[in-house]
Amino acid sequence: MPKMTVAELEAFYATHFPQLSSFRFKIEEVEDRFIRVRLFHHDLHLRPGGTISGPSLMTLADTAMYSLLLAMIGPVALAVTTSLNINFLRKPAAADVIAQARLLKLGSRLAVGEVTMFSDGDDEPVAHATVTYSIPPRREP
Amino acid sequence: MPKMTVAELEAFYATHFPQLSSFRFKIEEVEDRFIRVRLFHHDLHLRPGGTISGPSLMTLADTAMYSLLLAMIGPVALAVTTSLNINFLRKPAAADVIAQARLLKLGSRLAVGEVTMFSDGDDEPVAHATVTYSIPPRREP
Amino acid sequence: MPKMTVAELEAFYATHFPQLSSFRFKIEEVEDRFIRVRLFHHDLHLRPGGTISGPSLMTLADTAMYSLLLAMIGPVALAVTTSLNINFLRKPAAADVIAQARLLKLGSRLAVGEVTMFSDGDDEPVAHATVTYSIPPRREP
Amino acid sequence: MPKMTVAELEAFYATHFPQLSSFRFKIEEVEDRFIRVRLFHHDLHLRPGGTISGPSLMTLADTAMYSLLLAMIGPVALAVTTSLNINFLRKPAAADVIAQARLLKLGSRLAVGEVTMFSDGDDEPVAHATVTYSIPPRREP
Repeated sequence: MPKMTVAELEAFYATHFPQLSSFRFKIEEVEDRFIRVRLFHHDLHLRPGGTISGPSLMTLADTAMYSLLLAMIGPVALAVTTSLNINFLRKPAAADVIAQARLLKLGSRLAVGEVTMFSDGDDEPVAHATVTYSIPPRREP
Repeated sequence: MPKMTVAELEAFYATHFPQLSSFRFKIEEVEDRFIRVRLFHHDLHLRPGGTISGPSLMTLADTAMYSLLLAMIGPVALAVTTSLNINFLRKPAAADVIAQARLLKLGSRLAVGEVTMFSDGDDEPVAHATVTYSIPPRREP
Repeated sequence: MPKMTVAELEAFYATHFPQLSSFRFKIEEVEDRFIRVRLFHHDLHLRPGGTISGPSLMTLADTAMYSLLLAMIGPVALAVTTSLNINFLRKPAAADVIAQARLLKLGSRLAVGEVTMFSDGDDEPVAHATVTYSIPPRREP
Repeated sequence: MPKMTVAELEAFYATHFPQLSSFRFKIEEVEDRFIRVRLFHHDLHLRPGGTISGPSLMTLADTAMYSLLLAMIGPVALAVTTSLNINFLRKPAAADVIAQARLLKLGSRLAVGEVTMFSDGDDEPVAHATVTYSIPPRREP
């Protein structure tokens, strides 16, 4: 089960990653090995035509999975993103994007997860990513 | 809905890809945008210690997704694998491997799917892959 | 050989992607199937500790390869990023990042390239990406 | 510099991976962080039309990079493939395939490399892969 709530994740980000506040996202739900994150439809994320940009979707995938990992292991040993693979599937609608992230593996040294992203209200995914993390050895007290 | 049944897929492979028969797999179920394929635990696929080899898992992922794509679009325009990304998650057990493949996008020119692979009887995946295909333009009659 | 110069690429971006100006990068050189792009070390791109963030490196990889593709085919048919795979290799230094992008394939429908990224002045890469694009059919006049 | 020669790698495979002998490949050269491996054009690797199959190219990429890693760290702590990403670029010719593999990172826990594959005698690559490995902690004596 998660070791951190949505409120604890938000407090952690406000303290340690203040620059993330400009990314305009919201963690909506944390469960065992699952998280749902909303990216707000905002000028910052747009390409001409009102479409959410590829880089914003990549950042969303990494942020969602990093948040899930943090929730599961707690803010003890900070994970490092080692790889990200994303497939862009459809042009996003002029709407928020919802990321649903799931851990496929949570080992002591490596974690792997997948993220499916949808335009809010749509059933067909706009992008799908897999992300891997290296978890540093915990420092002994 | 699929345009080909399991029996039609098997007949197609026997005619067009006879060398695949040595791969020792079986298509178990085809549904709309979903397929389940079993890789038999066989010497051919093993690494020392009785573990299914990485190359066998990659071949399984490609074969499962290719079969699903074939089932969905029919044997008209043969798709070409353009990329495959696989994460190896756990050491497979000494057992068959079950691949569950799902299409994330089926466009007129590109298709993208994901495959989750399990040791038979286990809940935790041993590998996860995403595979992309280019679908050639149909030749006019 | 390229169909667009660095100055023409800059003019194209200023007109069609004005929001990219906030990304703080500069195209330094375009050759046949090769481009070099500099990402300026700027607060916008930083994580705590002064490290260039993963999302900034992903955006750099996509921007460099998109610029190379644009230079090679000209601003006729706009390519669409279909996938990006990145491996993060080392913590970037507190310095600009130099991206060297190379086309591996430039077909009529698909393009594939690889991008190696270095901290300015360092020999060991900080990240490596492969990026794929779909090139839409040209509209007949 | 490498800790194992081509002859030592061959002896290692003959002893520990006898089933690889059916894969019909040859390590041609090992240098610092670089290896060249030849996959023989053989019925085993072919698809209808005489083309080398995708699974054979994936196996080649993994085998080449694994051999390079083994050469660089020695047969002490056996690395485990954690991910493989491959882009298929062109239909291979009816010829041997040459893999050129290069390490991008050789850390104490993770290694990452890239492999470019060519039909023998051709300049344009048929496939490009990146492969990552987890290196287990060395057992203390």
